[in-house]
Formats: sequence, C-alpha cells, structure tokens
Amino acid sequence: MNYELDKTFAALADPARRAMVERLVQGPASVSELARPLPMSLPAVMLHLKVLEESGLVTSRKDGRVRTCRIEPKMLSQAEQWVSERRRMWERNLDRLGQFLDEEKP
Amino acid sequence: MNYELDKTFAALADPARRAMVERLVQGPASVSELARPLPMSLPAVMLHLKVLEESGLVTSRKDGRVRTCRIEPKMLSQAEQWVSERRRMWERNLDRLGQFLDEEKP
Repeated sequence: MNYELDKTFAALADPARRAMVERLVQGPASVSELARPLPMSLPAVMLHLKVLEESGLVTSRKDGRVRTCRIEPKMLSQAEQWVSERRRMWERNLDRLGQFLDEEKP
Repeated sequence: MNYELDKTFAALADPARRAMVERLVQGPASVSELARPLPMSLPAVMLHLKVLEESGLVTSRKDGRVRTCRIEPKMLSQAEQWVSERRRMWERNLDRLGQFLDEEKP
C-alpha cells in the first residue's frame, strides 16, 4: 500500500489545486501569480498551496519577499503510474475476456 | 474545468477504495469478494463502494441476493489523461528550459 498516494489524490480532488498544478507544470510561479486567475483570496490560495506541499506535488521557497512554487515531479509520476497501470490491467482483462468468448464460440 | 475529476480523485484518495479498484480491474466482483481482503466491516465496504459509484469509477448491479461491481473505464481514463498530460507538460517545459540554457552558454 502506498499511503503517499492518499494525499496526492486528495490534493488533486479540488479544481483550484488542479489549476495551480496546471500553471506550475508550465514553470515555477510566485504565489501571487498562482492566485491571479483564481476566484479566491490570497489566504485561500495559501491554504491550497499548503495542501499541495503536504502532498509532495509542489515545493515552495521564499526568496526575500517572494515565495516561488515549483512542481515536484515524483508524486505526479507516482499518481500517473498508479492510474495508468490500473487502466492497462483493466484493458488486459477485457482482452482476455474477448479471447475466452471467441474460443467458446461454436 | 472538469468537476467530475473532483470526485474521481477524491475516490482514489483512500487505500481501501484503491484496493477495491485494484480488484475490479481484474474483472467484476461481488461486494463480499471485494470485502474479503479488507480489514473492515461489510457496512464500511458498502460506504466505500458508494463513494466509488458516485465518482463514476465503479458501477454495481444487484442480481437476486448478489451485488456485482464493475469498473467503469471512462473516469479511470479521464483521471489518467489529466495526470499524464500534466506530467508531459512539465517534461516539455523542462526540455525548453534545457534548450534555453544550452543556447545561453557562452
């Protein structure tokens, strides 16, 4: 069991946090850049950022007065891998079922 | 914005529900088959199943006394697509950054 994925998927279960990830996959951004397109206050954005950081999807560092946020690719890859493998397993099972039904044909 | 993904990622943010998805990608299963390996009561499993059904990841149908559960591949694919695209966008951005740094070299 990979309990890290609990926090990663929970972090992705919110449209504002997905929007922040969408922005950050294009490159690092300050908190105010992240907040600009979002229909919420800066403190609300900071709370979402906290959830993203705790999930391991994002890191941030304060340089002077500016906090710069970055994607941490490891957890994004782990989430991708989990979902992709399950989707592939499902397809393989479907193929096997199709084969079985073909062989059973009179 | 795809709000369907809110429920899909939230559904995947729990180890018991991920275990149920893992089982179901191998093929349909009854609720008691899903419950067998899980360290929890049948009512707890039913609650997790409800979350999975509301997320669109799983469907179930009652035939007589047995409720059979199945993967609904659409939302699994949507979740996969969202994460895979973001991971690829992040890699493309990294490539562009690498190119830029190469070109800036004296």
